[in-house]
Amino acid sequence: MTVLVAAQQTETPDPLPSRQARLAYRGGEVGSTAGVAPGFVQGNLAILPAEYASAFHRFCQLNPKPCPIIGMSDVGSPHIPALGADLDIRTDVPRYRVWRDGEVVDEPTDVTGYWRDDLVTFVLGCSFSFEEALLDEGMPIRHIEQNVRVPMYRTNIACGEAGPFAGPMVVSMRPFKPADAIRAVQITSRYPAVHGAPVHLGHPHLIGIKDIAKPDYGDPVPVADDEIPVFWACGVTPQSVINAARLPFAITHSPGLMLVTDLKNRTMAVI
Amino acid sequence: MTVLVAAQQTETPDPLPSRQARLAYRGGEVGSTAGVAPGFVQGNLAILPAEYASAFHRFCQLNPKPCPIIGMSDVGSPHIPALGADLDIRTDVPRYRVWRDGEVVDEPTDVTGYWRDDLVTFVLGCSFSFEEALLDEGMPIRHIEQNVRVPMYRTNIACGEAGPFAGPMVVSMRPFKPADAIRAVQITSRYPAVHGAPVHLGHPHLIGIKDIAKPDYGDPVPVADDEIPVFWACGVTPQSVINAARLPFAITHSPGLMLVTDLKNRTMAVI
Repeated sequence: MTVLVAAQQTETPDPLPSRQARLAYRGGEVGSTAGVAPGFVQGNLAILPAEYASAFHRFCQLNPKPCPIIGMSDVGSPHIPALGADLDIRTDVPRYRVWRDGEVVDEPTDVTGYWRDDLVTFVLGCSFSFEEALLDEGMPIRHIEQNVRVPMYRTNIACGEAGPFAGPMVVSMRPFKPADAIRAVQITSRYPAVHGAPVHLGHPHLIGIKDIAKPDYGDPVPVADDEIPVFWACGVTPQSVINAARLPFAITHSPGLMLVTDLKNRTMAVI
Repeated sequence: MTVLVAAQQTETPDPLPSRQARLAYRGGEVGSTAGVAPGFVQGNLAILPAEYASAFHRFCQLNPKPCPIIGMSDVGSPHIPALGADLDIRTDVPRYRVWRDGEVVDEPTDVTGYWRDDLVTFVLGCSFSFEEALLDEGMPIRHIEQNVRVPMYRTNIACGEAGPFAGPMVVSMRPFKPADAIRAVQITSRYPAVHGAPVHLGHPHLIGIKDIAKPDYGDPVPVADDEIPVFWACGVTPQSVINAARLPFAITHSPGLMLVTDLKNRTMAVI
């Protein structure tokens, strides 16, 4: 009892920055989570009816680089204690997308009204974590320097299929000088739960990218003559696949407005 | 005593393949050590008068990627027990180069006649070890497939200088498809004592290589349109630097005819 009281006393004046962020979003605040609660893991969100959840789970298992699962709820539960003791997945994300038959029908800041007892939540690792690891080692990240969204591309790399879930891998691109590209492989290899090592570098056409200056999502960034484009599997892949599956119902986060968890980025490093 | 006798009994019928190789070279056999004693570390050899040894040691310390020290003798001693209990550096390498004032003056198979009490031996890690690690993971290595020497290039990457030792880094090149290039970075990063991760990939001109088809040492290999040239720091660097320093006296191994040690390649992996 004493311990509990002491913990509460500590927490009240100084909750985790991640929890502070979730409480703000729960209270109605809206905005990109880029740079929010530095050091804490953010996640992509996929909420599906149980009927589709096991196939989606298999899809993630088959495609761990674009779809690394960092948390999952019980059927019908809006809580994922492993990602935050008081986390409520219905309210704690800044903005959601509600999908019906493959179309976005609503972009609310709270999905309590859409909640159903058969929903299963998947939280998938996000590139913000490995970008923090790159920045911590002094690596320049072009789209952050230019204050734009990371450029993303649909590739000709087919994901492994599971049930209705199939489609190409979407990748994000960051240009680096060659020695930095090598270092970036090393750094991000330590973080398999947040997309891990790149899936490709150089030669964009080999993975079906016709024009590096025209990303399918996000914003273009310049690649200098002395740089190499480096491509990582991207968390937009599951959203693209859920879209293509034209499920009767699904909920995702709004791009760039992620779930902020209480996990620390550094605990994601496998070595 | 019992243990020693037992060990000798075991060793007599079945000495280590590495020791068998050294004994054969000691007995006069000559030939490339490529593929000899699989699983065992081979090393580049640099034997210098003590007068220059500390500067060369500093040079290696400053340039660990081209010059990773895996063994070193006491002044005047031809033995390096850490690399092989009965190793005799004067006789156990298939062929040597004896240098005077920067010129090769002899290429004997035994340097007992050249031995001096002031000589210090450095053994530096060699790419054979990381190539074995790549092959073990099913990675194709072009020059091995084509049964030629690895192509090597003088770069515009300046080594750190120490005393008379200075000059450009020499690199070896292996072409890979992009996903394999990423895997090769991961695999070789585990082996810092045998050159470790690549120093460059793609864009050869950025490191001063004008024509990838014209290596400065070794043989050219084709780089396909869907491949990327990947460059590792090379153990020819110290030989090139010793040459340029025009020392009054030095001994090295003859290229491709290395010292075979009793160290296991897998013990070189840091993780």
